[in-house]
Amino acid sequence: MAQFINSKEDIVQEALDGMVAVSGGRLVRLDGYPFIRVITRSDWDRSRVAVISGGGSGHEPAHAGFVGPGMLTAAVCGDVFASPSVEAVLAGILAVTGDAGCVLIVKNYTGDRLNFGLAAERARALGKKVSMVIVQDDIALPDISRPRGVAGTLFVHKLAGAVSESGGDLDAVTAAARRAASNIMSIGMSLDTCTVPGSRKESRIRAGEIELGLGIHGEPGASHIPYRGARQAMADAVANFLPRLNGGSYAALLNNLGSTTELEMSILAGELRQSAIGSAISHIVGPASMMTALDMHGFSLTLYALNAEDMNLLARETPLRAWPGLKPFAAPGIVPLPEGLASRRPTASADPAIEALLVRCCNALIAAEADLNALDARSGDGDTGTTLATAARALVRNIGQLPLSDPTQLYGALGQELSQTMGGSSGVLLAICFTAAGDAASNGHTPIGALKAGLARMQEVGGAQPGDRTMIDALLPALDALPQGLPDAARAAREGANGTATMSRARAGRATYIGAEQLRGHADPGAEAVARLFESLCQVDAE
Amino acid sequence: MAQFINSKEDIVQEALDGMVAVSGGRLVRLDGYPFIRVITRSDWDRSRVAVISGGGSGHEPAHAGFVGPGMLTAAVCGDVFASPSVEAVLAGILAVTGDAGCVLIVKNYTGDRLNFGLAAERARALGKKVSMVIVQDDIALPDISRPRGVAGTLFVHKLAGAVSESGGDLDAVTAAARRAASNIMSIGMSLDTCTVPGSRKESRIRAGEIELGLGIHGEPGASHIPYRGARQAMADAVANFLPRLNGGSYAALLNNLGSTTELEMSILAGELRQSAIGSAISHIVGPASMMTALDMHGFSLTLYALNAEDMNLLARETPLRAWPGLKPFAAPGIVPLPEGLASRRPTASADPAIEALLVRCCNALIAAEADLNALDARSGDGDTGTTLATAARALVRNIGQLPLSDPTQLYGALGQELSQTMGGSSGVLLAICFTAAGDAASNGHTPIGALKAGLARMQEVGGAQPGDRTMIDALLPALDALPQGLPDAARAAREGANGTATMSRARAGRATYIGAEQLRGHADPGAEAVARLFESLCQVDAE
Repeated sequence: MAQFINSKEDIVQEALDGMVAVSGGRLVRLDGYPFIRVITRSDWDRSRVAVISGGGSGHEPAHAGFVGPGMLTAAVCGDVFASPSVEAVLAGILAVTGDAGCVLIVKNYTGDRLNFGLAAERARALGKKVSMVIVQDDIALPDISRPRGVAGTLFVHKLAGAVSESGGDLDAVTAAARRAASNIMSIGMSLDTCTVPGSRKESRIRAGEIELGLGIHGEPGASHIPYRGARQAMADAVANFLPRLNGGSYAALLNNLGSTTELEMSILAGELRQSAIGSAISHIVGPASMMTALDMHGFSLTLYALNAEDMNLLARETPLRAWPGLKPFAAPGIVPLPEGLASRRPTASADPAIEALLVRCCNALIAAEADLNALDARSGDGDTGTTLATAARALVRNIGQLPLSDPTQLYGALGQELSQTMGGSSGVLLAICFTAAGDAASNGHTPIGALKAGLARMQEVGGAQPGDRTMIDALLPALDALPQGLPDAARAAREGANGTATMSRARAGRATYIGAEQLRGHADPGAEAVARLFESLCQVDAE
Repeated sequence: MAQFINSKEDIVQEALDGMVAVSGGRLVRLDGYPFIRVITRSDWDRSRVAVISGGGSGHEPAHAGFVGPGMLTAAVCGDVFASPSVEAVLAGILAVTGDAGCVLIVKNYTGDRLNFGLAAERARALGKKVSMVIVQDDIALPDISRPRGVAGTLFVHKLAGAVSESGGDLDAVTAAARRAASNIMSIGMSLDTCTVPGSRKESRIRAGEIELGLGIHGEPGASHIPYRGARQAMADAVANFLPRLNGGSYAALLNNLGSTTELEMSILAGELRQSAIGSAISHIVGPASMMTALDMHGFSLTLYALNAEDMNLLARETPLRAWPGLKPFAAPGIVPLPEGLASRRPTASADPAIEALLVRCCNALIAAEADLNALDARSGDGDTGTTLATAARALVRNIGQLPLSDPTQLYGALGQELSQTMGGSSGVLLAICFTAAGDAASNGHTPIGALKAGLARMQEVGGAQPGDRTMIDALLPALDALPQGLPDAARAAREGANGTATMSRARAGRATYIGAEQLRGHADPGAEAVARLFESLCQVDAE
């Protein structure tokens, strides 16, 4: 599967250069490419205990993303899923370690232990004070004597970084890191394997299954179990923690292993809260990508057995975006719906003349149903006639409930009626037109002025302009001519509607996607509807 | 493809509940499930202008992730890739809009325009002051009259939110949003399509191709072009902006469309800086997932034509993790490698007795090569003998360069020699042992005491304990017995080595993965090497 890389060999150094470039000056790198890839804080003065971590790359934002105030002083980065060399680790140590010494935080993999371990010896031989803390938080394989270090490592970074930042000495920082390392347990789950750059993706997880207890290097997990949705997956993960809970409260760290969407991670967070261990979790870090396995479609869950001192340290602010912060984990806050949401129906009132006018309009549209459908079939799905006729029939049916004698209320009521009975975009657009017209009418506009204000709003929201082959091409000239009387308005509407048949291309609505040839010679059905409506009103007038 | 969801119908509301639960009380939701899904700030007092956005879900962290101080007041969330209803938008407006009014920020999709537009009319009819700003930043299709709204929308949120936060009135907030909307242009690229929950993933992008100019709803992009790596992809994206640059400086927003790894996004950031428009970009937001299209393996790039006032507003701090902040975009800072990294070779010196002892040890290991390889073939890859013999030959060859007459330097020099000539974990472990022994010797330990200190450090780093079927099972008893003379030490080493043949299971090193049956009756090759070494020294003594 293709990836956004250049050559496999340059991945890590190019990515680190990108990270440093966007760090706003917070980070620098050592001038040791290609073999020595060390990222450090740019503002470090060596007066405090350095906190150094690292290991293979492919776990971004770990580790370089956690370099900054309150967490790591430096990150030593190996190739993807491969430990950095002794030289690289030594360079990292020497670059940031002053008289206060440094703590190395190392995940429990042989390569990392050995390379960090030998580098530590070398640094000691050069007079540096170095301590090393091994993280082994994975509980997937209870019988293994040397558990892997996984996402719980972030808690160790945070605790050690917080103590260092507040001026603790080497013993204090080391003790904090060891305490964190002994307080954590983690487990991972994934629906798919990861794509190692330059390699074909291995597909070992069958459809309908999920892998439980996997690490962060694409290696197989402890077991494959049936997958039955997010709720059951979280229950299966949580089952590993249940027998280990101590009765106290925990901070959870919910880690995205790579390509799980935020939608899914949020659902998993909700499931965690409602799970069998939800009530034991008082605080949460994430969900977020913190210790990933490239693009693994999975998550890991870490629990930290809390005490008051550590909680305080874990909660310390850090400006690092990669650390989402420790937050209370609580039932979602719910507030009542606002007042006024339910539409107030205006008081019905009678006005025989207005009623007759409206019924005539409706009947004109009902009569035009088949013709308008035929026109619409040229450019759309052939339902404009039916959509309008359906709304017109409903309006005739409900006409007794309208505030017919109250001009300032009537437009708004019509808008409300149309939004409930007329489907599609045109229903919403007409509803906007009449609602805005009602608003304008109640602000003192004349009936025609109010309609024009409504039309302007409809144009603003819908985005169509005159000439775009829409109902506006008939409606706007008709309203402009209306002060001179209905015959002028009807003539203007007819000219406008006929004009749409010569427009080469639609620029709004569904007809946008139809070629000019197919449209030519046929009027827009919305504009035609407007013309017929005004024409029918004239005929009635002439009767 | 399976996803971490429960049922398709509940995705958005379950995800929003999860988001609110981990917000630490920053967010609340309206009590309108399942149809009204509105997230608002919990600390909002309606005294300032509300900034409201939303639209279809599937773009997380947009839009709910941007609700908070300095950005959105509320987010109205539709189903995945579908506009929220008029009622839902109206609920959002009424929930947060006081006398100061509100601005609706709407991406240019028909459904969003209409539903937000009608809701705005309804709210106005209820007496609310509402303005609406349409975002249409996509430049993929230059001829289209109504470009899509994509990730540039975040700049509009930020600018409007900053003006609202600082107390600007409705006109000022609206003007800021309109200015932002007119200053942005965006384009997207992707190597793969996205997985819409409940639907099969469509694969329309062929191997070797990349899609250019795509939106955020999985719809096809403007074109498919050959894919030739990250550098060329960024060059192809950038080419769309080149003719549009105004000679001024820009802020870039580099957005992860979903499942692109941070490694890839960082590489793309580096490529952007070195691209044809890199020098025009003074500031950057990201790379980060801000406006995603579910799990799309792609990115989008937005440019904001900067002016001093907007830069100030864009740079304002917000506590929202989803907004990565505006940072200077600069060449990565590089600092020199630290001093002392190159190993100082200790001054060579002669001591015939020590030289003879070392040569005897080396010869014993060289003589044992075949036997040790055979033993290792039982539990490993059959190279222990060769690994040790190779290092021994190199040591004999270089023996004239060692500080043979300086006991405090010799151990360290041996450690350095072994780390350079002996491969695999055991080479590093022995290097750690001798380097730590040298450290101890220079701190006043006796030669045997120093070796024991080195062994202790090797155990600490390697993690192996006595009984774990390693060389420690011979080396530790031999060193314990050494004060009583070499014969005792050799006897202890032999007993220890033989004992490893009865250990049922290895607990360290590669033999961990081998069954007990296969190991029984065969000594660990490392322990056997130690025994042979001590035995050979005795024989020489006895000669």
